[in-house]
Amino acid sequence: MTEPTLGNNIVTQVGIIVRDIESKARAWSEILGLPMPNIIITDTVDKAQTEYNGKSTTARAKLAFFHMGQLDVELIEPIDGPSTWKDQLDGHGDSLHHIAFVINDMQEKVAYLDSKGVPLLQRGEYTGGRYAYLDGVAQLGTVLELLEND
Amino acid sequence: MTEPTLGNNIVTQVGIIVRDIESKARAWSEILGLPMPNIIITDTVDKAQTEYNGKSTTARAKLAFFHMGQLDVELIEPIDGPSTWKDQLDGHGDSLHHIAFVINDMQEKVAYLDSKGVPLLQRGEYTGGRYAYLDGVAQLGTVLELLEND
Repeated sequence: MTEPTLGNNIVTQVGIIVRDIESKARAWSEILGLPMPNIIITDTVDKAQTEYNGKSTTARAKLAFFHMGQLDVELIEPIDGPSTWKDQLDGHGDSLHHIAFVINDMQEKVAYLDSKGVPLLQRGEYTGGRYAYLDGVAQLGTVLELLEND
Repeated sequence: MTEPTLGNNIVTQVGIIVRDIESKARAWSEILGLPMPNIIITDTVDKAQTEYNGKSTTARAKLAFFHMGQLDVELIEPIDGPSTWKDQLDGHGDSLHHIAFVINDMQEKVAYLDSKGVPLLQRGEYTGGRYAYLDGVAQLGTVLELLEND
């Protein structure tokens, strides 16, 4: 039996943690000649069911997406409670955070990565799907994000 | 007159700084089910003409590339002298480093980004082209790389 992998090796998103999403989004738009995106805010914990390090968290984030060919560049400004977003901002300042893949069977893929030393870091729901961040730093040098759309 | 932008908004590469490229490349290959790439070493300074912060540097790097759709994931292990690669490894450990765009007219694009507060950080030559890293952290939240192929 072939071991499962993610079933998809197309990087669909690169995430960047920023302290001030409004100024960063304006700079991306101006410097790279891209349309200024709307800035959205993730759902509150009752809807998003956000968990960080296995515990419920009130963490939210402001998000802005730039469509750049195959992938989106996602700007992320952490707000409120504990999260991988806030920890990275506190520890490393404005910086690249993750690369993302769209997958099926979230539970299976998270279990597969955990078995490979890439444990679940944070997860949550959004309208139409869910995400999981996996701590791939020790094995792969980066956080991975999995996105499952219904 | 329209201000020039990069002329290309397709992200062609995501770079990851790693302390041990052999183990990281094996992990990428195994965990994501990708062919194990060759690990190459950048040219010595006489050929690469590497400059970091405006000064010649003996810095080199081991590189491995994984082809993942539109873009490559590039693993980078710094060796020898001062470089943005080494500074990031020393300051932040294994971590995402840059996103890259293939461009034309390197000199013009570097001058354009400098005029926007995104200054040149490091540059060098490789067989068939040249690269430049620009310090986009303050404006964009990440280092950019420009690649010009002859």
